[in-house]
Amino acid sequence: MKLFNNPSRSQWKELVKRPTLELSHLDSTVKNILTRVKELGDSALLEFAWQFDRVKLSDILVSEDEIQEAITSVDEKLKAAIEQAHQNIYKFHDAQKTEPLDVETMPGVVCSRRTVAIDKVGMYIPGGSAPLFSTVLMLGIPAKIAGCPDVILCTPPMDNGAINAAILFTANLVGIRKIFKVGGAQAIAAMTYGTETIPAVYKIFGPGNQYVTKAKQLVSMEGIAIDMPAGPSEVLVFADEHANADFIAADLLSQAEHGADSQVMLVTTSPSLPEKVSHAIEIQLAQLSRRKIAEQALLNSRCLVFESDDDAFDFINTYAPEHLIINCADAEAKLGKVSNAGSVFLGAFTPEAAGDYASGTNHTLPTNGYAKAYSGVSLNSFQKAITVQRITKEGLKSLGSVVEVMAEAENLLGHKNAVSIRLKNISDENI
Amino acid sequence: MKLFNNPSRSQWKELVKRPTLELSHLDSTVKNILTRVKELGDSALLEFAWQFDRVKLSDILVSEDEIQEAITSVDEKLKAAIEQAHQNIYKFHDAQKTEPLDVETMPGVVCSRRTVAIDKVGMYIPGGSAPLFSTVLMLGIPAKIAGCPDVILCTPPMDNGAINAAILFTANLVGIRKIFKVGGAQAIAAMTYGTETIPAVYKIFGPGNQYVTKAKQLVSMEGIAIDMPAGPSEVLVFADEHANADFIAADLLSQAEHGADSQVMLVTTSPSLPEKVSHAIEIQLAQLSRRKIAEQALLNSRCLVFESDDDAFDFINTYAPEHLIINCADAEAKLGKVSNAGSVFLGAFTPEAAGDYASGTNHTLPTNGYAKAYSGVSLNSFQKAITVQRITKEGLKSLGSVVEVMAEAENLLGHKNAVSIRLKNISDENI
Repeated sequence: MKLFNNPSRSQWKELVKRPTLELSHLDSTVKNILTRVKELGDSALLEFAWQFDRVKLSDILVSEDEIQEAITSVDEKLKAAIEQAHQNIYKFHDAQKTEPLDVETMPGVVCSRRTVAIDKVGMYIPGGSAPLFSTVLMLGIPAKIAGCPDVILCTPPMDNGAINAAILFTANLVGIRKIFKVGGAQAIAAMTYGTETIPAVYKIFGPGNQYVTKAKQLVSMEGIAIDMPAGPSEVLVFADEHANADFIAADLLSQAEHGADSQVMLVTTSPSLPEKVSHAIEIQLAQLSRRKIAEQALLNSRCLVFESDDDAFDFINTYAPEHLIINCADAEAKLGKVSNAGSVFLGAFTPEAAGDYASGTNHTLPTNGYAKAYSGVSLNSFQKAITVQRITKEGLKSLGSVVEVMAEAENLLGHKNAVSIRLKNISDENI
Repeated sequence: MKLFNNPSRSQWKELVKRPTLELSHLDSTVKNILTRVKELGDSALLEFAWQFDRVKLSDILVSEDEIQEAITSVDEKLKAAIEQAHQNIYKFHDAQKTEPLDVETMPGVVCSRRTVAIDKVGMYIPGGSAPLFSTVLMLGIPAKIAGCPDVILCTPPMDNGAINAAILFTANLVGIRKIFKVGGAQAIAAMTYGTETIPAVYKIFGPGNQYVTKAKQLVSMEGIAIDMPAGPSEVLVFADEHANADFIAADLLSQAEHGADSQVMLVTTSPSLPEKVSHAIEIQLAQLSRRKIAEQALLNSRCLVFESDDDAFDFINTYAPEHLIINCADAEAKLGKVSNAGSVFLGAFTPEAAGDYASGTNHTLPTNGYAKAYSGVSLNSFQKAITVQRITKEGLKSLGSVVEVMAEAENLLGHKNAVSIRLKNISDENI
């Protein structure tokens, strides 16, 4: 981690930059995959499964037998852990339900807003070295609470053509029964255009590698909604001189092990902390199985020392971290200074890992500074709001002239007439 | 309007299609504009003002004098109408405020969610033949209620270099003081990259022509949030045999006058209604100042007769109209059948024009079928949500093993360690 002491504000633009690893051929490769799936459907998916995953698939849809088998095969301890996480995540997302809103803005003019589940949603769950069954919870639970009628899941098969058992167990737990063996950009294409087997959806959720991310970005230009723009995962730890350096090192490494393009940042007001943390990182790094990845990520990473809390939090809000750990004496008091962050972890005993899995918050969060304008996934992400207005004759008599005057001033006389013709009808009736 | 009697479901895919008028050179033209503004800043804006709007500007920022002059020049009747609309829109959007959420998911594990205003937002307001001061209300009011600290507005100057007085009056009414004379794709570029005069923002709102829409789409790929993907405006009227054909014709025409690429749809269960409406359209069309535009839009437009309400509403939900007028005997009872629409207008005396201006709902709505997954602009569009978790030592003792087991099963041992190292610290303390 590179150390910066009291960097000037003119340096901040460089310091908030994220590592970018975009491959030059990515755009054309992904466009080709999208087109092939759009044109050839299932046969393209089977072809890509062989080309990319070296798997000869007989069926794309996971069978009931495969699901049942997976459920029995998952270790009981893991089942219990997933069920506890499920309970916490359910509780927090269920509390996000909102009541329909009805407001009489003028006598006889009632405006309402009601949330409705998105009919068809799809989620992508990466497989490979880190089978993210936790993401099945994070997306499946709010989809279930929202009441989305059609929920499908795509995830790449393992070498043997099967899907990771924990992913199937978790999907079953959240009520998802339509699970398809398809990974990469081709999964995003299938959920966008539909194939013989996989139905098209209206909104696509879930993380993935650069191909998946690019595919989601491209299909979003065609009108498919996506959860949010994605970038590599990141954490920023704010700590003071009271913080335990071992905890900080563990938090930074837990993020660094995600991928070589992850970024971890330490922001502190303690000049002596960086050295302690560096030392702790060295010791803990030696014990990590994903050490090589973490070491690479640490090359992208920075440690910044500021003289004041205010400067530190100004920087943090400019960086807008996906995960923000506040590990200092009066963590709660600092919360009011945070305007841009995906999720905040307050206090010494609140590691990011708790939120990644089981505290109850969602782990699908805005990266890459997107927290300045985007929220993480919530119940709301699986709903849309419809507004409704009802106007009585009396209401239109009060409101009508307002609309007529404004429409005329905008040179939209057809708009004016839609009111005038009704007002005339009302006055004719009254004669 | 082309008539379709009981179209089969296989025809629906064609029948829900929107007109597309995309110009072939649009992409490269807009990319060039974006690049020039990014590189040259204000001087590019002045150059484009001359090139596109034939205006030699001395200042890009609207002066205090210009604002004051505009305020005095606006007709008192129009002022009063805008103020009444302001009051209704404010009331409905203010009621959308939410309380912070705090949930103890397990003893010692508290998850929270709080909404925070987006720091910097920009809005684009078209000028030209239809100066949309109503959109200033629709975007400015929720920005104000959300408490966005920095709100800017870009709108193209008129031939004389001034801004439409009603736009300035309305901007002042909603508290926007930073108004810039810049239109088109160059305005979107300026708000994305910032120039010497115009500050960069985090989220861009507002309608515009194809250049503006393309520019918003392109900058959204660079991480700037936008309100929603845009397409030409549209209305779908559902009516039964009780509906007044003159009202329907007026509603269809009020939408058709927006632009040649607008689409208006009539869906009915009454076989005799289409002819009555056609006749009424002919009569009313003759009186419209924007008749030429409306006639063109009617060429893209369709009338569909269905045998049952259920078929009709299945079609409507597949079309997912921006505006849905339900003009029939028991309009309220039909509302439950609507799952995809931007805004709904219930009953004979609720014209779309009321919602466009003054009922209280927002008129920035998802077009082009996006209502399947997107909501219209609301208070929420100017906020993002941050989740927060606080875990006590006791909390981590309950939750910790859940996280450890799940992290290990996902092969993320660094995540596990961030918990283990804390649990060990707690147990060491207790010895």
